[in-house]
Amino acid sequence: MPLRAMLPLPLLLAALAVAAAAAGAPRPHPLDPLSAAELTAVRAAVLASPLVPARPLTFHYVGLDEPDKPDVLSYAYGGGGGASRHALPRSAFVIARAGGESHELRVDVANASSPSVLSHAVHRGAGFPTLTLEEQFAAGALPPKHPPFVESVRRRGVDMDDVLCAVFPVGWFGGDGEPRRSRVAKVLCFVAGATANFYARPLEGVTLVVDLDRMAIVGYRDRVAYPVPKAEGTDYRAGKAGPPYAGPAPAPGVVVQPEGRGFHIDGHVVRWANWEFHVGFDMRAGTVISLASVHDADADAGGARRRRQVLYRGFVSEIFVPYMDPVEEWYYRTFLDAGEYGLGLWAFPLQPGGDCPANAAYLDGHYSGQDGRPVEARNMICVFERYSGDVAWRHTEAGFPNQLVIFDHEQKALRLRGRRRVSNSQSLADSVRPDVSLVARMVVSAGNYDYILDWEFKTSGSIKLVVSLTGLLEVKATAYAHADEVAQDAHGTLVAENTIAVYHDHYVTYHLDLDVDGTNNSFVKNIVTAVVRDADADADADADAAADTPRRSYWTVRREVAEREADGQVDLGGGAPADLVFVNPGKKTRMGNEVGYRVVPGGATAASVLADDDFPQRRAAYCKKQVRVTPYSRSEKWASGLYADQSTGGDGLAAWSERDRAIRGEDIVLWYTVGLHHVPYQEDFPVMPTLSGGLELRPSNFFERNPLLTTMPIGHGRPLVNCSCAGGDSISR
Amino acid sequence: MPLRAMLPLPLLLAALAVAAAAAGAPRPHPLDPLSAAELTAVRAAVLASPLVPARPLTFHYVGLDEPDKPDVLSYAYGGGGGASRHALPRSAFVIARAGGESHELRVDVANASSPSVLSHAVHRGAGFPTLTLEEQFAAGALPPKHPPFVESVRRRGVDMDDVLCAVFPVGWFGGDGEPRRSRVAKVLCFVAGATANFYARPLEGVTLVVDLDRMAIVGYRDRVAYPVPKAEGTDYRAGKAGPPYAGPAPAPGVVVQPEGRGFHIDGHVVRWANWEFHVGFDMRAGTVISLASVHDADADAGGARRRRQVLYRGFVSEIFVPYMDPVEEWYYRTFLDAGEYGLGLWAFPLQPGGDCPANAAYLDGHYSGQDGRPVEARNMICVFERYSGDVAWRHTEAGFPNQLVIFDHEQKALRLRGRRRVSNSQSLADSVRPDVSLVARMVVSAGNYDYILDWEFKTSGSIKLVVSLTGLLEVKATAYAHADEVAQDAHGTLVAENTIAVYHDHYVTYHLDLDVDGTNNSFVKNIVTAVVRDADADADADADAAADTPRRSYWTVRREVAEREADGQVDLGGGAPADLVFVNPGKKTRMGNEVGYRVVPGGATAASVLADDDFPQRRAAYCKKQVRVTPYSRSEKWASGLYADQSTGGDGLAAWSERDRAIRGEDIVLWYTVGLHHVPYQEDFPVMPTLSGGLELRPSNFFERNPLLTTMPIGHGRPLVNCSCAGGDSISR
Repeated sequence: MPLRAMLPLPLLLAALAVAAAAAGAPRPHPLDPLSAAELTAVRAAVLASPLVPARPLTFHYVGLDEPDKPDVLSYAYGGGGGASRHALPRSAFVIARAGGESHELRVDVANASSPSVLSHAVHRGAGFPTLTLEEQFAAGALPPKHPPFVESVRRRGVDMDDVLCAVFPVGWFGGDGEPRRSRVAKVLCFVAGATANFYARPLEGVTLVVDLDRMAIVGYRDRVAYPVPKAEGTDYRAGKAGPPYAGPAPAPGVVVQPEGRGFHIDGHVVRWANWEFHVGFDMRAGTVISLASVHDADADAGGARRRRQVLYRGFVSEIFVPYMDPVEEWYYRTFLDAGEYGLGLWAFPLQPGGDCPANAAYLDGHYSGQDGRPVEARNMICVFERYSGDVAWRHTEAGFPNQLVIFDHEQKALRLRGRRRVSNSQSLADSVRPDVSLVARMVVSAGNYDYILDWEFKTSGSIKLVVSLTGLLEVKATAYAHADEVAQDAHGTLVAENTIAVYHDHYVTYHLDLDVDGTNNSFVKNIVTAVVRDADADADADADAAADTPRRSYWTVRREVAEREADGQVDLGGGAPADLVFVNPGKKTRMGNEVGYRVVPGGATAASVLADDDFPQRRAAYCKKQVRVTPYSRSEKWASGLYADQSTGGDGLAAWSERDRAIRGEDIVLWYTVGLHHVPYQEDFPVMPTLSGGLELRPSNFFERNPLLTTMPIGHGRPLVNCSCAGGDSISR
Repeated sequence: MPLRAMLPLPLLLAALAVAAAAAGAPRPHPLDPLSAAELTAVRAAVLASPLVPARPLTFHYVGLDEPDKPDVLSYAYGGGGGASRHALPRSAFVIARAGGESHELRVDVANASSPSVLSHAVHRGAGFPTLTLEEQFAAGALPPKHPPFVESVRRRGVDMDDVLCAVFPVGWFGGDGEPRRSRVAKVLCFVAGATANFYARPLEGVTLVVDLDRMAIVGYRDRVAYPVPKAEGTDYRAGKAGPPYAGPAPAPGVVVQPEGRGFHIDGHVVRWANWEFHVGFDMRAGTVISLASVHDADADAGGARRRRQVLYRGFVSEIFVPYMDPVEEWYYRTFLDAGEYGLGLWAFPLQPGGDCPANAAYLDGHYSGQDGRPVEARNMICVFERYSGDVAWRHTEAGFPNQLVIFDHEQKALRLRGRRRVSNSQSLADSVRPDVSLVARMVVSAGNYDYILDWEFKTSGSIKLVVSLTGLLEVKATAYAHADEVAQDAHGTLVAENTIAVYHDHYVTYHLDLDVDGTNNSFVKNIVTAVVRDADADADADADAAADTPRRSYWTVRREVAEREADGQVDLGGGAPADLVFVNPGKKTRMGNEVGYRVVPGGATAASVLADDDFPQRRAAYCKKQVRVTPYSRSEKWASGLYADQSTGGDGLAAWSERDRAIRGEDIVLWYTVGLHHVPYQEDFPVMPTLSGGLELRPSNFFERNPLLTTMPIGHGRPLVNCSCAGGDSISR
């Protein structure tokens, strides 16, 4: 029987209605995130499928199951046009829970009015899927009805109306060696009421265990009572922290673009300056940047202008946040924020003028709720041009003895240093180019922490990835009211009375499928290698000249091409310094250098120091090497494995790489982990000033020469800007 | 006889005229750079002094000899007011050459009409002072008159009219173990003519040696002839690189401040938001930031508002750029750009709209020419507020089950995820604060390279120091026209036909006299120390609870206070990770934590790999450890020693530290070196896209809590900005 006939009538009518509305819409880009209509279709197909009859059925992950890479590349760059577009599938990958099992389904939604289940499998291994928002709220509502908890709260002198609970993944800690079969989580409770910052007022010592499938409390412990930290000083909301607003108040300022924005968004495709890329949204990864290509201003040998591939698909694959207190209530706090919570699921609407400047545009997203119904997530990603006041490139030439002209504010020639007055048309103004870049931003507020995740595109061809950490610390209640009272290792900093901010790490791991000028790349280390010269040896071919000089040492580059995955793992803190380059071994510049992009670390280069056999380390084993390279594989997306909750480390980036596969001249993927050892300080409380780190993907012999050489200097061909603001002075520049 | 009577009449009249003009002017801040009047007075006093009768006399360094630190602190923070202001000296430190010797003089210019020489000494040690601009131009003019050079040029088929020469310091390479007594330098020549980028067209193989004191050629070698690289493709000037202007063209944008600028400049004192600092200018250091203090919005225990000390004096002490080719023409290129050339001397006027944005203000400087006459250096430093679109801090709270409100663009409440519609006054807009910072910038174009040196002040209390590298590569002419022809180590990258960009390093060393809440500080390493737990041991005092948990490892902080200079040297690439903190051991927060500022590296953390006994490494031995701490000493300013040209390493940062002085609870100074191993790529040619790195000095238990907690949220108390530009749309935010 055709699938459609099996849909219950209400679902069928709903699907038809949605399809009718969608009938006139243009076909989506093959990498577009699933629309509300498609999510509705997925839900209908799954609920109608006889392959998963158990109820209730909860949706834990629904995301685009993207078409095969060669087909997407053909669509994007192959010029196949209309024909290939119709051929590309639209399907979803679903992880649903039913009957105590995790079900993996692929659903065809190419025609939203007649979706069909393509495949089904039951997960037999360790771990569980992402937790839903609804079950977290439901679990958080259980404790107040649990008599032992009521007693614990009363004993601490707290009003139950002020209590709020949240779900914390339980991780995996071995035990009998078998991964748990129960989908449990811990529930911890806090005191809100007088503050929004309930994280600062934990009911320390109380731990509940909830079976999420049964939605019942299956464990309870009230181990020890500590004073609940007071509410005063913990709230960050403006109405609570002030007045008086005594903090620093810079003058207001805004970026104004007299010709309007310079970027264009077509559906999910962004075009700006010399860049073009696709922006997607996924409930686990959040922002997904795909098909990023750059336009080369220099024509090729045949005179053709070229759009050149740089990044096929990039996204944050995991955020690992292990805490460093081995005590009962803290030892298991070893979060995998993407796999356990979902970065897209915990991204919230960006605030115009706060999270993003006035000249930003916004993109929405959709995700599936626990019941499979689509939820609209507004303002998930913003895109804006940044005028930072920085310089793209410059040079002042002072070497011409009779031609150095010093200009004053009005560009009038002044006296040359020590020389007579000259007028000269060699204007120094020609030798500066101000920098403008494009930022695509998402903010993930995964519980207490806020991660500002930026993709910054530069006209130089670089892509800068920046992680900015802010939000709230997780703190532990303690009897200590002053640092002098701390007699032994407190595992954190005393940031306020009775409040210890526990030490922890952050590891933000990027999946970066670089396709430098094409898919087959190699990973090259240009290793800075010191050479000590023997005074008597003829080390260089230029020996007669070189041997004559008294220089005793220098460094040169020893170039190593990684053959297999083991060669592609780099600890940035150890070994010899090196430039790490993704090259295209089949493409060279006119000078014969392999085209490439290199990785330039930008702060936050910590790596894990946990013991290799420690359980959280086993679940995120990849975080001892900041840089890893694997061969491309469609299924290898999630560094913590497909099922992160209670995972045992058998799936994921480290596990895949144990196969030590070939990575030379292959379609390879870069994995880069931005790491920070976070020793908290009082400034981080009650909310933390932003701390940033990241990396730059920088063209390295990708272009024949500086790609900005032929950009217009300031003032050429454009009148200077003449802007004014209501109530303020007119400003002409 | 009084000194005044000894001045020759012309000088006396000049001094009196200047003094008369200055008579009505307010007294300078004790750290203000020497004014034109004061420089004139210095010149008069030196030339009139019988202590240095030899002629010619050339001025190589004239800078402020600042008053003793306790007096300056008393002036700035002591509230002594008028009385102490009159008591503070104004004097200059001078290094002049005469009679083949280097003379050090201190000159009192408190009264510019009657300056007096306070002290005089002849330098007996190794090395020579900064080269003057005039002698470099004079030396560069010698080769065309030298017959062997005329022949070398003719033989290479070059037109002498296109030839331009520049001076390169000769360094020191031992030899007989005695430092040279002749003040020689090498002169290298290039071909300009069809290009402004003469560095790209060297006359490779030709080296001249010039005795700068005699201004005569004393050495010549034409070792080998290589093709002169062609001019095509080397010019970066707009008129030469295009049209067509095919490069990326972002939309124009400008920062508009409807209430005007938020900073005020009073002479050389800058006040902005919660910061106040003094900006000076020195011909060797360039920008000098002094007396940087931050206003603490939280009153102290007694209710008093406080301005708190952070940085007494900060500046770039040296920029070391060693090249990595041991051949005759390159082995000695091991520049010390501050000591040999002078960063202030080689800073050129900033271009409005290019180097600095439209809302910048500019500061001028003065320096002494070779003849001692003051030269006005316009637009040396710019100051501007940056509206980068970044976030200062934020938090979105999603934990309240019935209160999460999602706002749309128009700030209307939308459906809560899965819950009924609610309206709630807990506006999420309150939990974001956009970031505004203040940048003080100078650009040093030391020959081929341009260094953009930024001091960025943040309202969070951080100071970010950023070095941005751009400008031109030094290249070597070669017979190679393609990389395939390169059969052995070329010591660089073939970036164009016949053009090898030689490998090199950049080490930018900052002198940062942090005075965290006062002068006596200590240097603390908060070392991230892994703890592996023995399953049977009771390691923690919380033993009963901790031992029960299956967590096998964690890290804690082992705090080490540096006792002596050896303890204060840190290699960022080796050893255990640590937070590096300057603390005030006598000041604690209310919670009992020592107030401090920590050093957060931001990329560019390379350290030298040269052999310890190699001559350039001996002259800049400090660059193997990115972080160093010394006790404050007035004379310890220049990391490469007072006399950098042909220095032998006996003076300077590494030499001072060998005394291994006590640095605990002392007035200590941080020295931080930003380092980069530069493997050139074709994008760096003919001019390099900016590459940045640096560090953040970040408050660490300096404040009781986040200092931005009481800043106003967006929209409060201020109408949103309503700006428009001529010819464009009106924009309301």
